Amino acid sequence: MQITYGVNPLIEGLASRPPAFEKVVIARGRGGVELEKILHLAEKAGVPVEFVGREAIEKLAPKSVHQGVLGLGRDYDYATVEQVIANRHEKNSHDLVIMLDGVADPRNLGSVIRTAHCLGANGIVIPENRAASVTASTMKASAGASELLPVARVVNLVRTIAYLKEAGFWIYGADAEAKDDVDSLDYEGNVALVMGSEGRGIRPLVLKSCDFLVSIPMLGRVTSLNISVATGVILFEILRKWRR
Amino acid sequence: MQITYGVNPLIEGLASRPPAFEKVVIARGRGGVELEKILHLAEKAGVPVEFVGREAIEKLAPKSVHQGVLGLGRDYDYATVEQVIANRHEKNSHDLVIMLDGVADPRNLGSVIRTAHCLGANGIVIPENRAASVTASTMKASAGASELLPVARVVNLVRTIAYLKEAGFWIYGADAEAKDDVDSLDYEGNVALVMGSEGRGIRPLVLKSCDFLVSIPMLGRVTSLNISVATGVILFEILRKWRR
Repeated sequence: MQITYGVNPLIEGLASRPPAFEKVVIARGRGGVELEKILHLAEKAGVPVEFVGREAIEKLAPKSVHQGVLGLGRDYDYATVEQVIANRHEKNSHDLVIMLDGVADPRNLGSVIRTAHCLGANGIVIPENRAASVTASTMKASAGASELLPVARVVNLVRTIAYLKEAGFWIYGADAEAKDDVDSLDYEGNVALVMGSEGRGIRPLVLKSCDFLVSIPMLGRVTSLNISVATGVILFEILRKWRR
Repeated sequence: MQITYGVNPLIEGLASRPPAFEKVVIARGRGGVELEKILHLAEKAGVPVEFVGREAIEKLAPKSVHQGVLGLGRDYDYATVEQVIANRHEKNSHDLVIMLDGVADPRNLGSVIRTAHCLGANGIVIPENRAASVTASTMKASAGASELLPVARVVNLVRTIAYLKEAGFWIYGADAEAKDDVDSLDYEGNVALVMGSEGRGIRPLVLKSCDFLVSIPMLGRVTSLNISVATGVILFEILRKWRR
């Protein structure tokens, strides 16, 4: 279950993505203009409201700055890898799948989902373990794209890569040490692009499974781009090649 | 003065960018493992620590979730437009200046600074009014790049554009409605790239001052990329053209 706590996150959530909420829970005795706004938004969105004791709120969101208000949300509905493969954008001549090898920050995951959706990728594959799953902050950071782009969660990324290869994909890994600049390749055929985690990059076993490794030329002393910026730059370059 | 409040932000700040802090202020009576960590980091970074009453903390950071600990930081040291112009990256054949027309979120400003630094822009120009300035969250989102890349703050962006034109710059505006795709132009000569604010884009008067308008082809139903992703895609395309 997804829990949104705090006045502002809840107001924002109810306003921007009402279908994500199953119920709003409010501490008895809470009042004020903010509460009225929450009640109004919940009514408008058809989300039921329940008033409970403070202890019940503490139990649902222990140690959080909940301010006496919680939103309980649906769990994210993951897609299958097959659904991701089947979701080619009509303007693309090939399939384009993003695989994230252990991105840890749910908001980074959300930004990647937004970027991938805007630029026309099929969808995203993430691992089940040691990686961010699609949380309320992911949905928020995705600016709504998490409800539009399929995200699949798999047990073993290396096995999924093998599966994608059999399905006719070429696997490209983004690696700071790669000799090939991102704009030196042609990206012919169906592409699966593997992006590593913040800071640590792609794990060795996954890296070994890639057919090609590409790097973005870095000119600064801060050595890495944010993961969603790097994904955007590489995606755009692949699409640019396809459009020629 | 920049104020960082709360245990985790302060620990993170002291660990990742100690030069940004002038002093750490702690409520008398506060203890615990977290406090020891803060004291340790402050000592390591040579940042003085002061113990004060809770009221003094409340006065410095009213209504904030300060948890009895504050970091007082230096104000950000803005550059001049001339310093930005003079800061061409040695690997670039031309100057490349980013202008932000009213980006409102300090973290978005930080991500743009990181992106611009990593890809090799000269620096950034932001307006004084109705726009985010460089705050503690900007510095954090920039992953250290705010201490490496010059950021200038100007009263009037249109006047600065006129000044840059006289200094030999071509002005490119990123506009979702532009007919020219970002990869259809050659970007010859010195470039100033104007990016609009989140949601509203470039204001009409600034838009009129641009020599060229470019758009990134959008394929999704969420209609815009995050500002730092859009900046990254366009910057990379400009640099790609220059490297050819």
